[in-house]
Amino acid sequence: MHKKIQIMTQVIAKHNQSPITTFNNLKCKECGAEYELQAIHVCELCFGPLEVTYDYSGLCSQVTRESIASGPNSIWRYRQFLPVASDHPIDVGTGMTPLVFSQRLARRLGLKNLYIKNDAVNMPTLSFKDRVVSVALTRARELGFTTVSCASTGNLANSTAAIAAHAGLDCYVFIPADLEAGKVIGSLIYSPTLMAVEGNYDQVNRLCSEIANTYGWGFVNINLRPYYSEGSKTLGFEVAEQLGWKLPDHIVAPLASGSLFTKIYKGFHEFVKVGLVEDKAVRFSGAQAEGCSPIAQAFKRGMDFIQPVKPKTIAKSIAIGNPADGIYATEIARKTGGNIESVTDQEIIEGMKLLAETEGIFTETAGGTTIAVLKKLVESGKIDSEETTVVYITGNGLKTQEAVQGYIGEALTIEAKLDSFERKLERSRTLGRLEWQQVLV
Amino acid sequence: MHKKIQIMTQVIAKHNQSPITTFNNLKCKECGAEYELQAIHVCELCFGPLEVTYDYSGLCSQVTRESIASGPNSIWRYRQFLPVASDHPIDVGTGMTPLVFSQRLARRLGLKNLYIKNDAVNMPTLSFKDRVVSVALTRARELGFTTVSCASTGNLANSTAAIAAHAGLDCYVFIPADLEAGKVIGSLIYSPTLMAVEGNYDQVNRLCSEIANTYGWGFVNINLRPYYSEGSKTLGFEVAEQLGWKLPDHIVAPLASGSLFTKIYKGFHEFVKVGLVEDKAVRFSGAQAEGCSPIAQAFKRGMDFIQPVKPKTIAKSIAIGNPADGIYATEIARKTGGNIESVTDQEIIEGMKLLAETEGIFTETAGGTTIAVLKKLVESGKIDSEETTVVYITGNGLKTQEAVQGYIGEALTIEAKLDSFERKLERSRTLGRLEWQQVLV
Repeated sequence: MHKKIQIMTQVIAKHNQSPITTFNNLKCKECGAEYELQAIHVCELCFGPLEVTYDYSGLCSQVTRESIASGPNSIWRYRQFLPVASDHPIDVGTGMTPLVFSQRLARRLGLKNLYIKNDAVNMPTLSFKDRVVSVALTRARELGFTTVSCASTGNLANSTAAIAAHAGLDCYVFIPADLEAGKVIGSLIYSPTLMAVEGNYDQVNRLCSEIANTYGWGFVNINLRPYYSEGSKTLGFEVAEQLGWKLPDHIVAPLASGSLFTKIYKGFHEFVKVGLVEDKAVRFSGAQAEGCSPIAQAFKRGMDFIQPVKPKTIAKSIAIGNPADGIYATEIARKTGGNIESVTDQEIIEGMKLLAETEGIFTETAGGTTIAVLKKLVESGKIDSEETTVVYITGNGLKTQEAVQGYIGEALTIEAKLDSFERKLERSRTLGRLEWQQVLV
Repeated sequence: MHKKIQIMTQVIAKHNQSPITTFNNLKCKECGAEYELQAIHVCELCFGPLEVTYDYSGLCSQVTRESIASGPNSIWRYRQFLPVASDHPIDVGTGMTPLVFSQRLARRLGLKNLYIKNDAVNMPTLSFKDRVVSVALTRARELGFTTVSCASTGNLANSTAAIAAHAGLDCYVFIPADLEAGKVIGSLIYSPTLMAVEGNYDQVNRLCSEIANTYGWGFVNINLRPYYSEGSKTLGFEVAEQLGWKLPDHIVAPLASGSLFTKIYKGFHEFVKVGLVEDKAVRFSGAQAEGCSPIAQAFKRGMDFIQPVKPKTIAKSIAIGNPADGIYATEIARKTGGNIESVTDQEIIEGMKLLAETEGIFTETAGGTTIAVLKKLVESGKIDSEETTVVYITGNGLKTQEAVQGYIGEALTIEAKLDSFERKLERSRTLGRLEWQQVLV
């Protein structure tokens, strides 16, 4: 129907590639125009986003539950569902993070079947971004790039810098200048060129689009975005496999650009399509911070477009005021009977503490947002206590220590003597530990 | 030969236990006296340390390579080699961290068969301590403890607080008052009672020994130490399994108390004993920071005792001036033909940067120590380029950010405009990124 458009690129594949058997081409999500598998992300005809398409009938004959289960203990067990041709993808152990059956958080919230997908311990840099970057840099290498880059709210910068270092690629990362120390040091340590842009993420992103047009670099979330974003499907695949090849009833995930949300959805549907799991209704609910909630606002007002906002929240990693896939996220939430909610910064901190105290998982502000929204949805009757619900924790709290400092009490200082300990213990027991710590703070 | 000594404890098992089939009793490493499986760690006759013994012939009939490989993707796949009776150990996904075949670090050092065992991404709290704590708290629960505790240099505090939160146990953790922010916040977030002791780790440890004698708490590394320390064997088991059921030629590991080192050794020997791997000579080399190197000093001087020191190093997590298992570590290094080396704080920082730049792994100061010692051993001809060498990285760099701040350059601040970017890029290329960043700092 649409003719395939030949794209000129500055980059030519240098690596020998084994035959591409499962992914076909890039296709515009809006007008359906098809493109060759190069480093482009926007339709030349209608400016719609491009997405990778697959040969699902070919896939059916290639993959079984057994073939996947006997694959590597990483996202690359789903290699046939990912847009890379190489037999040697960059595998640093990314993915296959725990799906924790919640006992104590579930009880606290009154849920019976709650699971936590814990990407706070994803490898190597402790966020779900390691998934998308592993795919994007593998593809970048196939397309012949030797310099890679990204526009980032922090986690992506960490991941791109680390995996580029591992793969021996030159790396430039761009972040807003006001990020948390953990995200800055967690990039610099790998020796990329780190550019701190005076502005918010949306300004960083616009600048990087200009740079991507001028320099021959592979920007994982710009010109490589169609490949990159496919990596998030593995958060759908793993949950289905870890639930015993079943889909959940309800998922709750954070919303930044909205891409993760749409790709979990795509992942579930691909598994149904190739017969790995049975089809069923899955409700998709999304979480935003009130200080940057353009998708939640569009959802609540029934709008069919996203009104950009200026972010002002401690949840910096999801503070995207002009989210590229926001409108697709609202569509998915609507058609699956899910919800999109937002929470205040105070609720985000409470969410971080709640998850840590009940499950022993220290997540960053984005995870606090997701837990706070989960709580809000349960309290407002929008999640049923019997539903098999999966909440996605996407990053680690050690990177956003500033957010909780001053809200979690302090250590009780004692001398190295038994009587010093006993006096403090006595007083803390009288007052109750936390109140007393607050007296001290 | 030795009669079994009946020990009175304040704690009585509350949980129903399935039959204990693989572990027998506690045995003094010095005089061989045997004890029942309770919460004790020191021989009443000679004050030697107690160790768990197993029925290895029983074990032989229970485990095969296949039975292990089909077990959970965590340390509990080696359950029969661990001193717990419960069929439901505390499993938060701990263990089975990547064994990375090094390309870029190996090339830099001139090694051909270098592997990195990466516990910087261990679950849930990003250090090898999650292994020992998972075992200790499972055993603590079996022994009826409802309050658990530890004396810690930081990582152990994080791990005990997190896993106690997950298991719903009351928790008190004791740390030196001068620890890094990441280790303090990384404990407080789980809501333990955190006691910051004005003194070094050895003083904290002495205080905790007094408290353990007075209160009915399970101190993971004091009265539960025989169970706790067995968890480190899994760092031996996993390496053997991940190498394809083979032992390496040489291992390099950090030395704090010396316990980890001796337990990797025990793990390898147990696998040989039950026929899971072939016996072979493995050289054991250890790493210390020069500012706290009592084991390295004893090794170099051929002493048969450890002369305690006052620690003064940035490698706080391994700064134990009076290491309990130090002498056993020197014995193992000597009899296997290994070495124990120490490095300066400056070399430690260089080690952290080297690992990050070449492999994309951000380790804490202890890992920097181990990499720096690896480099030193290679350069002095004490590791052969052909040897299959495994270096153990035991913790994450996000917890010791202070150590590298000021040594890794800074972000280059730009306006959100293409020409601002291009001017900075031009200048940084002229000067070379790092030199230029140093001008800025």
